[in-house]
Amino acid sequence: MFNDSIRTDLASEIKEFRKLTEKDGFYDKTTEINGIKSREVRILNSSAADKTGKPVGTYITVDFGTAFEDEAVFETATEVIADKIKALVGNNLNEDVLLVGLGNSKLTSDAIGPETLSGIIITRHLKTHLPEIYTELPLRELSALTPGVLGTTGIETSDIVKAVTDKIEPSAVIVIDALASRRAERVCSTVQMSDSGISPGSGVGNHRKELSKKTLGIPVISIGIPTVIDTATLAYDTFEALCSAFQSKALKELVDEEVISYKAVCDVLGESSSNMIVTPRDIDVLVSKSSRLLAFSLNKALHGDLTSEEIQSLIN
Amino acid sequence: MFNDSIRTDLASEIKEFRKLTEKDGFYDKTTEINGIKSREVRILNSSAADKTGKPVGTYITVDFGTAFEDEAVFETATEVIADKIKALVGNNLNEDVLLVGLGNSKLTSDAIGPETLSGIIITRHLKTHLPEIYTELPLRELSALTPGVLGTTGIETSDIVKAVTDKIEPSAVIVIDALASRRAERVCSTVQMSDSGISPGSGVGNHRKELSKKTLGIPVISIGIPTVIDTATLAYDTFEALCSAFQSKALKELVDEEVISYKAVCDVLGESSSNMIVTPRDIDVLVSKSSRLLAFSLNKALHGDLTSEEIQSLIN
Amino acid sequence: MFNDSIRTDLASEIKEFRKLTEKDGFYDKTTEINGIKSREVRILNSSAADKTGKPVGTYITVDFGTAFEDEAVFETATEVIADKIKALVGNNLNEDVLLVGLGNSKLTSDAIGPETLSGIIITRHLKTHLPEIYTELPLRELSALTPGVLGTTGIETSDIVKAVTDKIEPSAVIVIDALASRRAERVCSTVQMSDSGISPGSGVGNHRKELSKKTLGIPVISIGIPTVIDTATLAYDTFEALCSAFQSKALKELVDEEVISYKAVCDVLGESSSNMIVTPRDIDVLVSKSSRLLAFSLNKALHGDLTSEEIQSLIN
Amino acid sequence: MFNDSIRTDLASEIKEFRKLTEKDGFYDKTTEINGIKSREVRILNSSAADKTGKPVGTYITVDFGTAFEDEAVFETATEVIADKIKALVGNNLNEDVLLVGLGNSKLTSDAIGPETLSGIIITRHLKTHLPEIYTELPLRELSALTPGVLGTTGIETSDIVKAVTDKIEPSAVIVIDALASRRAERVCSTVQMSDSGISPGSGVGNHRKELSKKTLGIPVISIGIPTVIDTATLAYDTFEALCSAFQSKALKELVDEEVISYKAVCDVLGESSSNMIVTPRDIDVLVSKSSRLLAFSLNKALHGDLTSEEIQSLIN
Repeated sequence: MFNDSIRTDLASEIKEFRKLTEKDGFYDKTTEINGIKSREVRILNSSAADKTGKPVGTYITVDFGTAFEDEAVFETATEVIADKIKALVGNNLNEDVLLVGLGNSKLTSDAIGPETLSGIIITRHLKTHLPEIYTELPLRELSALTPGVLGTTGIETSDIVKAVTDKIEPSAVIVIDALASRRAERVCSTVQMSDSGISPGSGVGNHRKELSKKTLGIPVISIGIPTVIDTATLAYDTFEALCSAFQSKALKELVDEEVISYKAVCDVLGESSSNMIVTPRDIDVLVSKSSRLLAFSLNKALHGDLTSEEIQSLIN
Repeated sequence: MFNDSIRTDLASEIKEFRKLTEKDGFYDKTTEINGIKSREVRILNSSAADKTGKPVGTYITVDFGTAFEDEAVFETATEVIADKIKALVGNNLNEDVLLVGLGNSKLTSDAIGPETLSGIIITRHLKTHLPEIYTELPLRELSALTPGVLGTTGIETSDIVKAVTDKIEPSAVIVIDALASRRAERVCSTVQMSDSGISPGSGVGNHRKELSKKTLGIPVISIGIPTVIDTATLAYDTFEALCSAFQSKALKELVDEEVISYKAVCDVLGESSSNMIVTPRDIDVLVSKSSRLLAFSLNKALHGDLTSEEIQSLIN
Repeated sequence: MFNDSIRTDLASEIKEFRKLTEKDGFYDKTTEINGIKSREVRILNSSAADKTGKPVGTYITVDFGTAFEDEAVFETATEVIADKIKALVGNNLNEDVLLVGLGNSKLTSDAIGPETLSGIIITRHLKTHLPEIYTELPLRELSALTPGVLGTTGIETSDIVKAVTDKIEPSAVIVIDALASRRAERVCSTVQMSDSGISPGSGVGNHRKELSKKTLGIPVISIGIPTVIDTATLAYDTFEALCSAFQSKALKELVDEEVISYKAVCDVLGESSSNMIVTPRDIDVLVSKSSRLLAFSLNKALHGDLTSEEIQSLIN
Repeated sequence: MFNDSIRTDLASEIKEFRKLTEKDGFYDKTTEINGIKSREVRILNSSAADKTGKPVGTYITVDFGTAFEDEAVFETATEVIADKIKALVGNNLNEDVLLVGLGNSKLTSDAIGPETLSGIIITRHLKTHLPEIYTELPLRELSALTPGVLGTTGIETSDIVKAVTDKIEPSAVIVIDALASRRAERVCSTVQMSDSGISPGSGVGNHRKELSKKTLGIPVISIGIPTVIDTATLAYDTFEALCSAFQSKALKELVDEEVISYKAVCDVLGESSSNMIVTPRDIDVLVSKSSRLLAFSLNKALHGDLTSEEIQSLIN
């Protein structure tokens, strides 16, 4: 039976939740580099896409876990993430990229996109104003856009991005956004990168027009870090925990009969659910650290060989 | 059986949750003024205090509900709230007051204290620098303190407030804070005012030293607006909704036998619960509007007769 | 002799500074409504445009002076400013308008554009999502864009605005920006409105591509409030003050011989001058109050008859 | 003739401006370490103190110049500054320190104090809550206070700091503030460290009660970076530049006769001068980078041997 309402932006979580396997049209491989775990899930055909509600494409997650507690792990994590981004964007420094920071900068849990952009070495304007920097340093032409959110602009975000990409014609677009996850422990400890574009707010029921190669006409890489879990997730997980804590036969039957199910929780919570979000109490610190991690990774991936020290002195 | 773990800062919610009545040592009266509902709960003795985990004192809640959609309701609500504050603080303009804005200004849902202070007409320094303003306008001497949070100062908030009150010796202290509520619908639609002081973070398990007449030696009025509900609340309420939606006999028995209870949910969630918070998705707008409401109410309550227009032109 | 370097964005100041009269191709009229002074300068032909370095068009300044100290003056000032905006934009509620907030929101003195936008009732998205609001209230379809600054986006601001206007095709664009003035006393006490478009940063030597009917293909109204004076202005004015204070014959001769002149000061300061700005010490409060004034004026001008109270409850 | 109105917080600039020499009661020595220039000026007696308007004490400036363009220079600069701070504070990790961030965090040019604090590893609360961190890492007990400014608190900053130091009894206080300089080229490129305490706003005519060993009873180290120059400075320097550019005999005479002098400029500008400030146009970026530099220097100086990498992973 198909359950259409799981609220997560992570392809790997959907696959797990729906108990889908390679036979359903997936490639799924986990690797570990210097202690940092990565997982690549590919949705290979339209049948797999239907089963997940996500477009055909490659979805890579990297668990950066303890990178905030140890600068050496941080360094490794940024290199692993940078490699994955390079694999998706390509390595040609002559191809210029537009970075788009989605989300509401006034809302702590939604600010990862705009905050990450503030740590990126933006160079597009220097081509004319300071051309020598391109010969001195292995820089790529990067520009940045913070389109804001529908509630304050009145304009579909996808329309703003489409308009600007048509105007400045970058080789590719990278879209950075805060995501929703099924698991509290993934909040601000996992990054997902994908070549399938993004539907802003898709994980939480606010359907917006998608940003993808189809709509923009150029490759769209989406990068996101979960900052919230949704309320249905929290409630259902608590119920599962109750079940396993009490070992009650009566409870187990209710679950087996699907009287109690994730879908039922979603139905009962209804609209109120999509109006509430669940975040860690220290989300301000986590978003700030996650944005720094993402900015360093992107600088390493998009510009040529720069050390963390060089990056630090080139950002504003 | 006593359940010690309800996470709310609202005295009225604790009383309801524990099904306590007047006989248990409470005064409880609801009134309505110009469509704005108020409720005064008094915890009359130490037995009632034990049963609620809140000190003896008066707890007034005002439901300002739709005040953000209609400026006339806003005006009425600020007057009702101002009257309640006057009842607690007194009407003597010669008594100076220190306002303290608790909470983390970088975390949207915790910023009500600091943000409210930025809308208050602060006058203490004008006594020396601009004395004529006191003869022209019916102003009270007000000062303001934003002590920050333990994680960034390393100092107990109560120690900072105690130090400053001992130094400047105000007649009373008003402490403004973001609260936790049991009910999502009360978030940013209710204000609680009390003369019993406050234990910062008490509603959510972060026990801090209290700010009260006992510890500061002067009257302490606490004012708060719920901005979060906790995760146990959300999970348990969802379970209740499931019960009533499915009318399952098996489920009802589990509740009657207290296999499933609010306490069980708290136990199962454990520490992770107090590390997560639930807020409305548009909490940035709600906190901004709630802070404006509270600031206008406080200006009306603490200074002499000022119109909203006069208040607007006197704040920074 | 022509002096090309006066740093002001106010057409009336350029006209005065260059001692130009009606015969040079200007219309110039001062009026007073309810104590609020307005002045309309029209640059009538290309000769007058050359003499001022400003395009042919209408430039209206309103001195709102003490509006921050008295809410009644504030109310009058917003009405006068709203009337002037209506005269430039037109009164047809069916014509949708895009508002653009120029400037760097992280730099206090440059934040008037973005901060004003946060006080505007944005409605474009409600047409689809909440259509009944248009029948209930006399609202115009408004959208808002905060394009950021070249240094952080790498994209010419005019390119972003051109792209978005071409995409969403509003009837007109209103561009809001912080300006430079010749006179310290005009900082945050005058607003200039014009139908001639704007060259971002033109008053201070950072030539950017213009935003105008010519470049965007639709009417462009620019609205600005001076927040800075430039360093050459400050230095030269101080020199003039020295001259008149000392009544020194030697000094007077140096001025008459143009050994000491505004141009000489600009030359001596050179590039360093355009890298420094002069602002009032309390610019944070002034920008916040000016943005509120402008937002109320714009809401009154662009939407139908709304009271200040209705505006307050409709903004976020 | 004595000129009392030079507006700078830098002791070395006052000494130069007044043409004072060692014989007037000064020690003055310039050194260079790894390309970073330092200068130590000691005001040795009350006569020298009278001549400078600064208390007896040691004033060390370090020119960090190009540290923002090259992370290796940044690293060296933080080490040199850290050494100077250690010389003033002492090297005993058992002595706890309270850091105070003066200034208005809402005003870009005044935010260095509060912004620096956000980059410091604050540990005082961990003693109780996480004691093992002290045995694992060579940390000192640090706390932080952001007292705000008189205009928003109504309380003298020195009263708040005195109250808190009396309460928590640190071994020493370090006060961090934005300063005024005589020279535009020193803005955000020099840091001054002193053991003589600080009078907030002293460089610009807003006399506040001092923070010093005399008033607080414990050693007070003040650390500041110039972010503004004052308007009189700017005007007079422009005049000097005019003189040298034109080689006019008439002009030279006016200067020799002190018809034109820094004091005359101050007199002519009068109060308006102290109400205006001059800053670089990119002060937002400069303050952000300066605060990071200062935070790293302080972490290195106050905690035991920590690398920049360790510091980065320990700050919030």
